[in-house]
Amino acid sequence: MSSTFGQVFRVTTWGESHGGGIGVVVDGCPPRVPLTVETVADELVRRRPGQSQLTTPRRERDTPEILSGVSDEGETLGTPIAIWVRNTDARSSSYDEMQHTYRPSHADYTYDAKYGIRAWAGGGRASARETIGRVAAGAVAKAVLAQICPQLQVLAWVEQVGDVCCQLPAREVESCVVESNPVRTADAAVADQMQRAIIEARSKGDSLGGVVACVVRQAPAGLGDPVFDKLEATLGHAMLSIPACKGFEVGSGFRAALIPGSRHNDAFYMSGGRVRTRSNNSGGIQGGISNGEDILMRLAFKPTATIALEQETVTDEHHAATLRGKGRHDPCVLPRAVPIVEAMARLVLVDHVLRQRAQCGIVC
Amino acid sequence: MSSTFGQVFRVTTWGESHGGGIGVVVDGCPPRVPLTVETVADELVRRRPGQSQLTTPRRERDTPEILSGVSDEGETLGTPIAIWVRNTDARSSSYDEMQHTYRPSHADYTYDAKYGIRAWAGGGRASARETIGRVAAGAVAKAVLAQICPQLQVLAWVEQVGDVCCQLPAREVESCVVESNPVRTADAAVADQMQRAIIEARSKGDSLGGVVACVVRQAPAGLGDPVFDKLEATLGHAMLSIPACKGFEVGSGFRAALIPGSRHNDAFYMSGGRVRTRSNNSGGIQGGISNGEDILMRLAFKPTATIALEQETVTDEHHAATLRGKGRHDPCVLPRAVPIVEAMARLVLVDHVLRQRAQCGIVC
Amino acid sequence: MSSTFGQVFRVTTWGESHGGGIGVVVDGCPPRVPLTVETVADELVRRRPGQSQLTTPRRERDTPEILSGVSDEGETLGTPIAIWVRNTDARSSSYDEMQHTYRPSHADYTYDAKYGIRAWAGGGRASARETIGRVAAGAVAKAVLAQICPQLQVLAWVEQVGDVCCQLPAREVESCVVESNPVRTADAAVADQMQRAIIEARSKGDSLGGVVACVVRQAPAGLGDPVFDKLEATLGHAMLSIPACKGFEVGSGFRAALIPGSRHNDAFYMSGGRVRTRSNNSGGIQGGISNGEDILMRLAFKPTATIALEQETVTDEHHAATLRGKGRHDPCVLPRAVPIVEAMARLVLVDHVLRQRAQCGIVC
Amino acid sequence: MSSTFGQVFRVTTWGESHGGGIGVVVDGCPPRVPLTVETVADELVRRRPGQSQLTTPRRERDTPEILSGVSDEGETLGTPIAIWVRNTDARSSSYDEMQHTYRPSHADYTYDAKYGIRAWAGGGRASARETIGRVAAGAVAKAVLAQICPQLQVLAWVEQVGDVCCQLPAREVESCVVESNPVRTADAAVADQMQRAIIEARSKGDSLGGVVACVVRQAPAGLGDPVFDKLEATLGHAMLSIPACKGFEVGSGFRAALIPGSRHNDAFYMSGGRVRTRSNNSGGIQGGISNGEDILMRLAFKPTATIALEQETVTDEHHAATLRGKGRHDPCVLPRAVPIVEAMARLVLVDHVLRQRAQCGIVC
Repeated sequence: MSSTFGQVFRVTTWGESHGGGIGVVVDGCPPRVPLTVETVADELVRRRPGQSQLTTPRRERDTPEILSGVSDEGETLGTPIAIWVRNTDARSSSYDEMQHTYRPSHADYTYDAKYGIRAWAGGGRASARETIGRVAAGAVAKAVLAQICPQLQVLAWVEQVGDVCCQLPAREVESCVVESNPVRTADAAVADQMQRAIIEARSKGDSLGGVVACVVRQAPAGLGDPVFDKLEATLGHAMLSIPACKGFEVGSGFRAALIPGSRHNDAFYMSGGRVRTRSNNSGGIQGGISNGEDILMRLAFKPTATIALEQETVTDEHHAATLRGKGRHDPCVLPRAVPIVEAMARLVLVDHVLRQRAQCGIVC
Repeated sequence: MSSTFGQVFRVTTWGESHGGGIGVVVDGCPPRVPLTVETVADELVRRRPGQSQLTTPRRERDTPEILSGVSDEGETLGTPIAIWVRNTDARSSSYDEMQHTYRPSHADYTYDAKYGIRAWAGGGRASARETIGRVAAGAVAKAVLAQICPQLQVLAWVEQVGDVCCQLPAREVESCVVESNPVRTADAAVADQMQRAIIEARSKGDSLGGVVACVVRQAPAGLGDPVFDKLEATLGHAMLSIPACKGFEVGSGFRAALIPGSRHNDAFYMSGGRVRTRSNNSGGIQGGISNGEDILMRLAFKPTATIALEQETVTDEHHAATLRGKGRHDPCVLPRAVPIVEAMARLVLVDHVLRQRAQCGIVC
Repeated sequence: MSSTFGQVFRVTTWGESHGGGIGVVVDGCPPRVPLTVETVADELVRRRPGQSQLTTPRRERDTPEILSGVSDEGETLGTPIAIWVRNTDARSSSYDEMQHTYRPSHADYTYDAKYGIRAWAGGGRASARETIGRVAAGAVAKAVLAQICPQLQVLAWVEQVGDVCCQLPAREVESCVVESNPVRTADAAVADQMQRAIIEARSKGDSLGGVVACVVRQAPAGLGDPVFDKLEATLGHAMLSIPACKGFEVGSGFRAALIPGSRHNDAFYMSGGRVRTRSNNSGGIQGGISNGEDILMRLAFKPTATIALEQETVTDEHHAATLRGKGRHDPCVLPRAVPIVEAMARLVLVDHVLRQRAQCGIVC
Repeated sequence: MSSTFGQVFRVTTWGESHGGGIGVVVDGCPPRVPLTVETVADELVRRRPGQSQLTTPRRERDTPEILSGVSDEGETLGTPIAIWVRNTDARSSSYDEMQHTYRPSHADYTYDAKYGIRAWAGGGRASARETIGRVAAGAVAKAVLAQICPQLQVLAWVEQVGDVCCQLPAREVESCVVESNPVRTADAAVADQMQRAIIEARSKGDSLGGVVACVVRQAPAGLGDPVFDKLEATLGHAMLSIPACKGFEVGSGFRAALIPGSRHNDAFYMSGGRVRTRSNNSGGIQGGISNGEDILMRLAFKPTATIALEQETVTDEHHAATLRGKGRHDPCVLPRAVPIVEAMARLVLVDHVLRQRAQCGIVC
C-alpha cells in the first residue's frame, strides 16, 4: 500500500532497477486533458543520467510508452494512464559484490530486515530509477494543472552544494537560468563554483549533498486539507519520500526559531483587490491552506551513499567486510533531483486542486 | 478526508475550539490491549494549558471520556475507540474582534478562502485545542506499542527556544529531566535560560519559536513502507501537520549538505549479534525503513502568532485594520508541543508496526 | 479501518449498544450546507424502535447532538461533523445469559473468533443500534444532495414480508403511502396482510425476513467510477453492510438469467432532448455509471435472529447449551430497515457526486 | 481512484481493449511467496476467449509478463508486482459503426456522459478484456493464500444458464468436473443441456444470462471487518464490479425472505473441538465475519449485450439509429466468468487475511 500516492489523483509506481522496467499508473486523472508521450519524455530527459559530466555516465534512454488512458488524438480518457520505461542499460556485473555485502547508508540491510529478501542488483526498488515513475506522473499532473490553474508555476533549483550557496531570492529565480547550467542552480555566477565542488568530490572518490529550493507561484488560495493533510504536511510527505531527502522546511522553516512573533507574523494588506501579505514567513501556507502567496520550500539532500572509497561494512551473513563502490553513480544527486522535486510538488498540488473541487465545488 | 490519519491504525479527529467538544475515533486498534481513561488523561494533562507560568492561564480541564471500544474491564475490543473532551472554559467574548478581522499568520483568512465560512471563535478547527484528539489517540497508540514492542521508547524535548539551545546528545536525554522543568528541555542547566527568554518575550507582548527534538529508541528494524510511505515521509507528514510546525528533519537533516559522503555514510559493524552502525547520520532510517538504531527527528516551530502588539491586517470585507491579540495565549508553544510530537510519532509507529505485521507477518 | 465508508465524503461510525453512546463523524462534507439537529432527528425518528406494535417496545429516545462542524447559524463549516446519540434505555440484565452463550445466527461467536473478546451486552458493536450513525450521516448526505442535485430523490419501501409481496412498479411508489402504514410498504392494500404476518410470527415466538426495494429518481447521468467502484458495486457494498442483509440486486437482478439479450437490452431513444431507454433492465446503471434512468435496487433481509423459541447452541467454553431470546426485539426488521437503506443509498450517491466533481469538474 | 481494489493487498488495473495492453499492479503482497509467470498464465488461459465453441472465436493469446516484484528465483520481493498482457488481435474495423452509435445496454453512452470522451474501439475500458488484470492479480492472491491458509479452497461454477439449472449442493461440487465441461457447470449431466441452450441462442443471434455460484471452503473463522467492510459487503463489492453482474447473494440470499427465523437460524454444536453450525443459511458469515463454515455466494449475470439482431438506439449526436452487433462475442459470458469470480473472491479473502494479521496478529 506504499507505492500509491494521492487521494483523488492517485499515482501508483512499480519497478526495480534491473527488472523489466519502471512504470506508473495514474488514476483519477480528469478527462480531455491534452497529453502526448513527448510531454512525458521531455520531463524524463531532465531526470535522466548522462546529461552532463556532473552526472553518472550510465546511458539510460528512458523512452516512455503510454499504454492506456490517452486517446489516439492525444487526450486523456479519464481512465487510468499507464506509462512505462523499459530497463535497458543494466550491467548487473557491476553489482556482483553487492549481492552479499551491505552498502553503507543504502537500503540493502533494511530491505533484508523488512522483507527477508531483496533485489540486490542496482538497488532494486530502492534505486533512484524508481523516480522515473514519479517524473512521468508529474508530467501528467503538469498537463492537468495547465488546464485548471493555467497561471500556476512550479520551479525548483539547486540552492546549495556542499558549502557553496546560491543566495538569489525565490521571487527572482528564472527557469531559463536554472536550465542553462548543468548544476541547475538559480544564479549562473555560482554555477561554476558548484560544478567545481562536485568534480573535486568525484575526483577524490567522494560525494556531496546540498539543498534544493522550490517555489510554487500563482497557486490559488484555498488548497490544503486541515487537519492532517495540511498543504505543508502533504508536501513534506511527498518530498521526504524522495530518495536521499533528509529534511524539509516551508517558509521561514528552521529560521523561525530565531525570529520573534512580532517580526515573523505576515501582516495582511489589500492590493489589486486581493488579500496579500507584506512578508512571507508563512511560505504561502496558513493553517495548512494556501493563501495565494508564493509557496516556498527547501529540501536537504544527503551526499550520494555510493562512493569509490573503501568503507567498513558487513555481509548478509553478518561477517565484517569492506566495500568500494564500483557502479557508475552521480557524485551529487542535486541537479537530477530538481525535476523530481517539481514532479512531487505537482502531484501534491493537483491532488489538492481536485480535492478542493470535490468538497467546495470551485478552485479560487 | 483530511481529518483521518493512518492506513491500518486509523485516527479521525473532530471538533472546533468553541463547539461541543473535541474528540477522536481510533479504528483498527488491536483487541485485548489494556486501556483506561486514566492512561488517556495522563497524556492530556501534559498537553493542557495552565501547567506553568510559561503557558496560557486558560484553565482547560480536558477530562476525557471513553465512549466506545473498551470493555468494562479496561481492554480494547477491536472496535472503534471514541474519546472526547467537552469544551468548557470558552470565553467567546475575548474573540469578538476576530469575527471580522483576520489575525496575521493565523488561519482566519485561508479558512474563509477555502470554505467561504469559518468558526471564528477561538480559531475554530485551526485552534491548538484540536491537538487534544491527537494526544488522546497517541495514548492509545502508546498502549498498543507497549504490548507489541515493549522495548520501544518515544521521547521528545525542547531543544531550542529563540536562540537558547540545549546541546545534549539525543542518547543522553532522560524523560525525568525533561518533565522536571517547565520548558521541557533536556538539560536542566539550560531550562532557566529558556524560561527567562519566554517570560521576557511575553512581557514585551511578543512570542518565541524554537525546535523540538524527538528520539525513538529500540524501534524494531523493518518499519516503513517504500516508496511513498517511507518512515521519514510519514513521520514528516505527521509532524508537519502539527499547528505551527515549519520544518522537519531526520538524522543529519539540513547539516547533510555540508558533510561529504565519506563522512556521512554510516559504516556497518556487528555487535551482540546485531547489525549496527558506527555513526547515525541516517537517523535510524535507510531506504525509508528503520534499521534498529535511534530514530532522530527535529522539528521547527514558529513563534505564536497571537501577540499583544498591534499589527496591520485587513477585515473579511477587505478593509485595512489593526489588531492586538486579546485572548490568553502561550508566548511559546514549544513546552506544550512536546507531548503532541510524541503522540504523532507513536501514531506513525503503531501504523507501521501493524502494516508490517499485515505484509510480512512478523515485526522483528 | 472498517468503520469508515466513502472516499471523499467519508463517514466513520463508532459505538456499542451498551456503552456511552453511538456516533458518527462525517468528514469531507461541503461547506455552507444548511443543517440543523432537527434534520438529523427527523431521520432518526424513522429508524427508532417503539414506533408501532410491529417493532420492539424498547424506548430509545435517540436524541442526536451535533458536536462539531456546523455553525451557530446552522450551516456546515467544511470541517468534520460529529453527531452522537447517548445510550440510555440499556437493560443489561436482559442479556445476562448471552454473556457466555452464543446466540445462533448472531455475531457472538464470530466476534470472539476474530477479536478474542466481545462486548456481549446487547450485541455490542454488532447491535442494530450501530445503524444510528449511518442514518445520522445519511441525513447530512441528504442535505448535501438537496443542494447539489435538488431533483434527486431516494425512496425505499418494504416489498416483501415472508411470502406477502407488494407488486407496485417502482415508478408508482409514493413516499406518503410508504410512511402512512407501519410496515412501510408501497401498497396500502397489502400493508394489513404484511402486518398480520408479522404479528402472527411474533405470537409464535418466531420472526420473518423479506425484501426492501429502493429507487433513486432523477440521479444525474455520469455517477459511478469504473472499474472497481462501479455504482452498483458501491451500492451493493453499502447495502450488504447493513445488518441482516443477505442479497442485493440492481435492475433485472437474478431475473436477468431468464431473459434473452434481445429482450434484456434497453433500447435507446431520444425524448425531450435527453437520451432515454425504452426499458430499464439496467436499473439505471450501464458500465457502472448512472444513465439518468431510475436506479432500481432490491435487498434481501433474513428473519430476525433473536426469537423466543428454544434453540440449540454452545457456550463460549464450548459446552452444549440451549437459549431462548429474552430481549425486546423486532419480529421483523424490514420496516425499520427502510430509513437505513435510504441513508446508505445517499451516502453512496453523495460520495460519487463529489468524486465526479473532483475528476470531471461538473455533475451533469 | 476507482481502479484500485483492496486496503492492504491493493490491486490497481489499467488498460483499454484496443490500447497497448492490459495490466495490473499488486501492492502490499507478502514477500517470499513462490510466484512464476506460469502460475499467472494458467489462470489467464481459463479466462481467455476461444477456449471452445461456446466462446468468442477471437484469438487472444493473453501471454502475461511479470515486470517487477518477483526475484529471478521466482519469489515475491514485497515490492509492487506489475503484470501485463499486450493487446494483439485487435480488429478495430469491426467496431467502426460503434464510433458514433451507442450500443444498447453497453457503457458507450454512460462513458460519454461521464467523461465527455470515450475509447470507442472494442468498448475501451468497459471491455471484458479489463478482467485480465483481475485474473492475473487473483493468481497472485492464490499463491499468497496457499502459503498462509493452505487449506483454503475457492471454487466457482455455472449454476444456471437461461432456465437450465444445476442443482448439485455446493459441498458436492468438484473442481475436476467443473473444468471437464465447456460450460463449467458442476453437474456433467446438465452440461450438454446448457451447451445446447447457448448454441441455440447464438444461432438466433441472441444471448443468454445465468447464475454463477462460488464456495470458499476451509476459510479460517475471523475474516471480515465490521461494520462497513463486513465480509459479505466486500465480497459483494468485488462481485458486483464484474462486468454484467446484476445481483449477489450470500447464504440463503433472497430465499431468506421466505424462511421463518426458527428455521433460518443456524444452530451451533461442537464437532471435533470446533464450533460448527447444523445448517448454513448464514453462508459462512455472521455479523460480517467468517465462522469457519463454507462461504456460499451466488451471482446473477445478464445476457451478453452485443447480439447479432438489429436494435433501436441513438448516435452520439442524438439521432435515432439502428445497430446490429458485428464483433465476435460470447453468446453467454458465464463459462468465462468462472475464473473471474474466483479471482475476485481471492482478492477479497487475501485482503481480509492480511487485515486480520495486522489488527489481531494471527489468522485463526
